[in-house]
Amino acid sequence: MAERSLEGLIDALRRLPGVGQKSAQRMAYHLLQHDRDGAQRLAQALQTATLAVQHCQRCHTFTEEALCATCSDAQRDARQLLVVESPADQAAVERSGSYRGLYFVLMGRLSPLDGIGLADIGVHPLLERAADGVVQEVILATGFSAEGEATAHVLAQALRSLPGPGGAPLTVTRLARGVPVGSELEYVDLSTLAHALSDRR
Amino acid sequence: MAERSLEGLIDALRRLPGVGQKSAQRMAYHLLQHDRDGAQRLAQALQTATLAVQHCQRCHTFTEEALCATCSDAQRDARQLLVVESPADQAAVERSGSYRGLYFVLMGRLSPLDGIGLADIGVHPLLERAADGVVQEVILATGFSAEGEATAHVLAQALRSLPGPGGAPLTVTRLARGVPVGSELEYVDLSTLAHALSDRR
Ligand SMILES: [Zn+2]
Ligand SMILES: [Zn+2]
Repeated sequence: MAERSLEGLIDALRRLPGVGQKSAQRMAYHLLQHDRDGAQRLAQALQTATLAVQHCQRCHTFTEEALCATCSDAQRDARQLLVVESPADQAAVERSGSYRGLYFVLMGRLSPLDGIGLADIGVHPLLERAADGVVQEVILATGFSAEGEATAHVLAQALRSLPGPGGAPLTVTRLARGVPVGSELEYVDLSTLAHALSDRR
Repeated sequence: MAERSLEGLIDALRRLPGVGQKSAQRMAYHLLQHDRDGAQRLAQALQTATLAVQHCQRCHTFTEEALCATCSDAQRDARQLLVVESPADQAAVERSGSYRGLYFVLMGRLSPLDGIGLADIGVHPLLERAADGVVQEVILATGFSAEGEATAHVLAQALRSLPGPGGAPLTVTRLARGVPVGSELEYVDLSTLAHALSDRR
C-alpha cells in the first residue's frame, strides 16, 4: 500500500499516547471507511483547541482565558492551595465535593527516567504562587505512585522554607494514605478521596 | 472544567475506535501539553486523507487514484481474484510473497448483529468484477472468525452461480485451514499464510 496520505494519517495517529501501528491503522481505516464526518470534526477540534487552549496564569491548568473558572471564583478559599499532577486529578478532587480552596496543577510529576525534572513541573511558579501572602496551607495531592510520592517529597522540602502570611511558616500537608498505594488519583472512588482529604497530615 | 474547545477535542477523540473517555482525555492533555506540533500534523493529515483517499474502482481498496497500484500492475495474474476483508489483510497476503493475482477488498464482513449486510460489503460490485470474463478463480480469504466464515460461505454460494471465461463455471476456493481458527488474518505469521494459500481448497 503506497498511498501517501493514508500513510501520513497512520503516522500522525501513532503519535497519540498508547496508539501503536495496528491501532493507528484500524483508526485510519475506520475514519475513512465509516466516519469521514468524524475525521473532519477531529481535524477541526484539534485546530480549535491548539489555538484556544492555554495555561491559567495562576494555577497552570488548561483554560481559554487568562484565568481559569476556579481561580476567578471569589467564593473559593484563597488560604488553601491544593497541588495536583493533572486537570483530571483536579476534576476528581472537585467531584469529591470536600474541597473549597484553590489549586495548582503541575501538569506532570518528577520522572528522572523520562527526563522530567523540577523545572518541567513548574516548581518556581508554584513557589511564587504559594508565597503570595494569602496562602496559609499547601496540600500536596500528587499521586501515590513512586513518582508522585517523590514529587510530593521534593515539593514539601521546597515549600516548608517559604514564609506564609505575616511571616509564619507555610503549613504543608499531604493527602492521607487512604488512597490505595500505587494507584492514580483520578481512578479513586469519591468517598476514599473525601476521607483522604479530611485525614490529611 | 468548563473549557469548551478542550471538551470538544475530547469528544472528537472519543469517536476513534477503541478510545473511551479516559483515553480521550489522556490524548487531549498529552497533545496540548507536550505535542501541539503533533496535534497540528494530525489535523492536517486528517484533512488531506479525507480529501485525497477514495476507493479503487476495481478492487475497492483505499487509493488516491482511480485505480490502485496493484490493479494497475500489468505483471499481476488477472485470472485470479483474492477476496479479503480489509487493506490490512491484503497487505498481509502481499507480505507472504506467494500470491501474484489481483484482489477484491470487501472493506468489512457480514455482521448481522452490527447491521452489516451483503450490500455493505459490496457483494454486487464483487459479482460484477468476478464476471469480467478473465477471472477464472476466486480465492476467498476472509478471516476464520465466525463472521469471516459466514461471509465466505455466502460469497461462495453467490460466486458459484457465475459463468467464468468461455462459459465454464468460476472456480471458487477458500484459504486452507492452516490459519488458526478464531484469529484475524493480519496477525497470522507469514509461513502459515503461505501454507494456507498453497493448500487452498
Ligand atoms: Zn487557574
Ligand atoms: Zn485496486
